[in-house]
Amino acid sequence: MAASKRNKASKKELILQKASAMFREKGYATTSMRDLAEAVGIEAASLYNHIQSKSEILQEIIFRAANDCNVHLEGMDKIGLTSLKKIESLIRFHVQMMLYHFDDYCVMINEWIHLPEPYLTNFTTQRRNYVQKMEAIINEGLIDKEMKPVMPYVAMLTILSSVRGLEFWHRSGKKISPQKMEDNMVYYLINGLKK
Amino acid sequence: MAASKRNKASKKELILQKASAMFREKGYATTSMRDLAEAVGIEAASLYNHIQSKSEILQEIIFRAANDCNVHLEGMDKIGLTSLKKIESLIRFHVQMMLYHFDDYCVMINEWIHLPEPYLTNFTTQRRNYVQKMEAIINEGLIDKEMKPVMPYVAMLTILSSVRGLEFWHRSGKKISPQKMEDNMVYYLINGLKK
Repeated sequence: MAASKRNKASKKELILQKASAMFREKGYATTSMRDLAEAVGIEAASLYNHIQSKSEILQEIIFRAANDCNVHLEGMDKIGLTSLKKIESLIRFHVQMMLYHFDDYCVMINEWIHLPEPYLTNFTTQRRNYVQKMEAIINEGLIDKEMKPVMPYVAMLTILSSVRGLEFWHRSGKKISPQKMEDNMVYYLINGLKK
Repeated sequence: MAASKRNKASKKELILQKASAMFREKGYATTSMRDLAEAVGIEAASLYNHIQSKSEILQEIIFRAANDCNVHLEGMDKIGLTSLKKIESLIRFHVQMMLYHFDDYCVMINEWIHLPEPYLTNFTTQRRNYVQKMEAIINEGLIDKEMKPVMPYVAMLTILSSVRGLEFWHRSGKKISPQKMEDNMVYYLINGLKK
């Protein structure tokens, strides 16, 4: 890649990162392109050399994070895990997304409502498929008698809500290492399912 | 109580109920006194016969819900439950708050940030005390070997986040009875703790 093209790519990445942090903190609706340009350190007009609109930035952030989720889910299918191991892998993956891709993950779960069509429908369809696959894994675990009889919908909701709750830990400044956080949450949520 | 005084009390209750629903749905910041008056079916000026300000309404909703939480927590101490039974009672209580006092509970957990001082500090102090007491109960359960070794902070966060997640169930229109929802969530979260 020529140097100028490479610079442009890294500038766009910087814009996405700053935007993600601002969308998470202030919300998409109240972040202006002017605020964003200031955070990136360029003129507002120059932003448009890299991206077409605020909405395009939101789409890139959300679909990138959603894609990571889908790739992980599909990857699991290929390595022959038991249902319980699949759910453990899913919990770890989501906790890690929350810990290490905090801004992007929070923007995805909190700001998707601002996506314009057809992206909005595309996202909600992907999300519906995703949670249905999660519920199907839990259902298999029930059939295989690997898991306790919890309604798959309730287990899925409990797991994803618990991960979402890490937002509060992040804000609390509580001194627990990310690894301890992950291990304890996995331990609690897997023990609640394991027969 | 004279009829006119009784009418005034019930009108105020109606105002609080409508406000709670609107604050939950649209957020405190974007709900105007004009919107509220319209929802209640009175003139905006008449609202001020019953309440002094939008902020006063927020305070009443939040401190009433917080008070319910504190009364339940303190009531438990008097009836000699084991730590595990206390946590079960807490989970059921919070699930029921979410199911049957949905608007008030959501306003408390999502809109408290808009409380003015000194109410803001009062609320965050109450909340800190509350979660510390919850963590202390879980810690007792660990010491008594009634519970598995989950970090009390992580268990508390997982429980309260799971309850908070019921907001999505509420919105999803999923046909699961409130009793089934409560029983399944208690079953999952208690099994994850019980030794």
